[in-house]
Amino acid sequence: MIRVGLGIDMGGTQTKILAVSESGRTLRREVVSTSPRKGPASFIRRVAAVIRRLERGLGRTAESATLAVAGDVDVSGGILRRAPNVSAFERYPLGDALSRALKRPVTVQNDANMAAWCAYARELGRRFPNVVALTMGTGIGGGVILDGKLFTGATGSAGEVGHMRIYSGGALCGCGARGCLEAYAGKGAVTRQARELLEARPGVSALSRRKSLEPDDIARAALAGDPVAREVWRKVGESLGLGIVNIVYLFNPDVIVLAGGLSQAAPLFLKSLRRILRCESFRAPFGRVKIRVAQQTEQGALGAALYSLESPH
Amino acid sequence: MIRVGLGIDMGGTQTKILAVSESGRTLRREVVSTSPRKGPASFIRRVAAVIRRLERGLGRTAESATLAVAGDVDVSGGILRRAPNVSAFERYPLGDALSRALKRPVTVQNDANMAAWCAYARELGRRFPNVVALTMGTGIGGGVILDGKLFTGATGSAGEVGHMRIYSGGALCGCGARGCLEAYAGKGAVTRQARELLEARPGVSALSRRKSLEPDDIARAALAGDPVAREVWRKVGESLGLGIVNIVYLFNPDVIVLAGGLSQAAPLFLKSLRRILRCESFRAPFGRVKIRVAQQTEQGALGAALYSLESPH
Repeated sequence: MIRVGLGIDMGGTQTKILAVSESGRTLRREVVSTSPRKGPASFIRRVAAVIRRLERGLGRTAESATLAVAGDVDVSGGILRRAPNVSAFERYPLGDALSRALKRPVTVQNDANMAAWCAYARELGRRFPNVVALTMGTGIGGGVILDGKLFTGATGSAGEVGHMRIYSGGALCGCGARGCLEAYAGKGAVTRQARELLEARPGVSALSRRKSLEPDDIARAALAGDPVAREVWRKVGESLGLGIVNIVYLFNPDVIVLAGGLSQAAPLFLKSLRRILRCESFRAPFGRVKIRVAQQTEQGALGAALYSLESPH
Repeated sequence: MIRVGLGIDMGGTQTKILAVSESGRTLRREVVSTSPRKGPASFIRRVAAVIRRLERGLGRTAESATLAVAGDVDVSGGILRRAPNVSAFERYPLGDALSRALKRPVTVQNDANMAAWCAYARELGRRFPNVVALTMGTGIGGGVILDGKLFTGATGSAGEVGHMRIYSGGALCGCGARGCLEAYAGKGAVTRQARELLEARPGVSALSRRKSLEPDDIARAALAGDPVAREVWRKVGESLGLGIVNIVYLFNPDVIVLAGGLSQAAPLFLKSLRRILRCESFRAPFGRVKIRVAQQTEQGALGAALYSLESPH
């Protein structure tokens, strides 16, 4: 009997549904609109309908499913405690509702945790027992695999690396605190630092004539040799490096995987990131840790699909 | 058959040897001089002789022993990779040598890890699966219990909380980096911050007339109402609070236990520490975590003795 893994990655706009083989090969892929305004009951109905159609086409049924969401998840209750992108779904029993609709067990997990599982189980082939994944986008999330198991902590919140303080009292973060990693290496922080540098060094960069200063624009300018854009990514790499220094001192992982949209700019920031790590005097943990950039896209959905195959629910 | 746990806590000056019952009751306690200058072979001989005598007196023999040391330990090799206080013992096969002398398995562990085990298994009665202990002294060490097991990471270095960066670019730490937690909340940092405040506010404090400014002196002055001394401990509490914020975001523990000499000053810094934690917007992990001060002395030796009873070696 060939088992099928089923992963659902709910974003603020789109929800991806992935059916995979045990080796992680994609068997079917569907996308549905999340439409948070229609409410969670409508979302569950539409997702369940797509999954039933997908499984008819496949001629096979998954034993269970994993739903990955961006936010603070109560894993045991299958509830989103806090989800800025889909706040309409907060406190709704997502796990139970989807489980009833699909007539099988459903686990709800943080999407960064599932990205970490993808990195551990698929990209790294389970060769490294301790893996921390950073998902770099608007926010910076994190997922933690320790001794070959997903580690979620006392309330399912472990690995919230984006809000670790690296420059206490520094730049204001969306969470209300100052000096969080996210306030130095999230999408908004890349743009903010570009604006600050352009103001400090007027006339040096062609970027100053642009209205849009999205990370993509700044990456293209850096690749074309723009000095301010290059400086922005150097600073992002240093801040990420400091965050990773803390992760290494606390978790002592074998591998740290950078995932999410911003990780595509890694060639622009990896050098300054590694320079920060080389300065640390504790040789054993810093000599061991490898920094990898995720090759796989849709880490959340793929990780969720693989994770659904993991444990008897 | 009543089992005996055997723990050896090697400090830079003294080494404590503890035989305990399975419930953690002390059966025998001995202290030997570490005398690092005499070299590790002499140390092993003297410790083994004391243990043999102790066990004759007890009429029972421990099946195995755990040696706790301050420093970076290669657990699988039973070797001290880095130990500032007993550098003469670095790279010596301590575990193997003591195992041969005692004719039984010996595990070498970091002393903060054993303090964490003591907190988990003895003080908290194994009721909380995720516990992080901070040992506050000259350095700030850490030990991590996750899902009821000691977590040591890829190279045995997990939980090195003292060198996590909280104010990157800030005060210089003994490790060579700037802005480590230890540089704001270790013993030397307490004294340094007192000197800085005394210089900034001359004539305000009776402490300015003292030659010695050890943490004990500053604690006594604070209890007597000295405004500068009180301000020092307030600042120490804030820095510790920031370190704990990072620990909570990464490990999401049930309990954080403050141990070591400086933790005795907790009544002077706990209020400002808790104020920092209350400001965090992630309610689930910060609502869950309890901050406790270790009541047990000799946490390292007791934790090691209890840990020796844990696993089949």
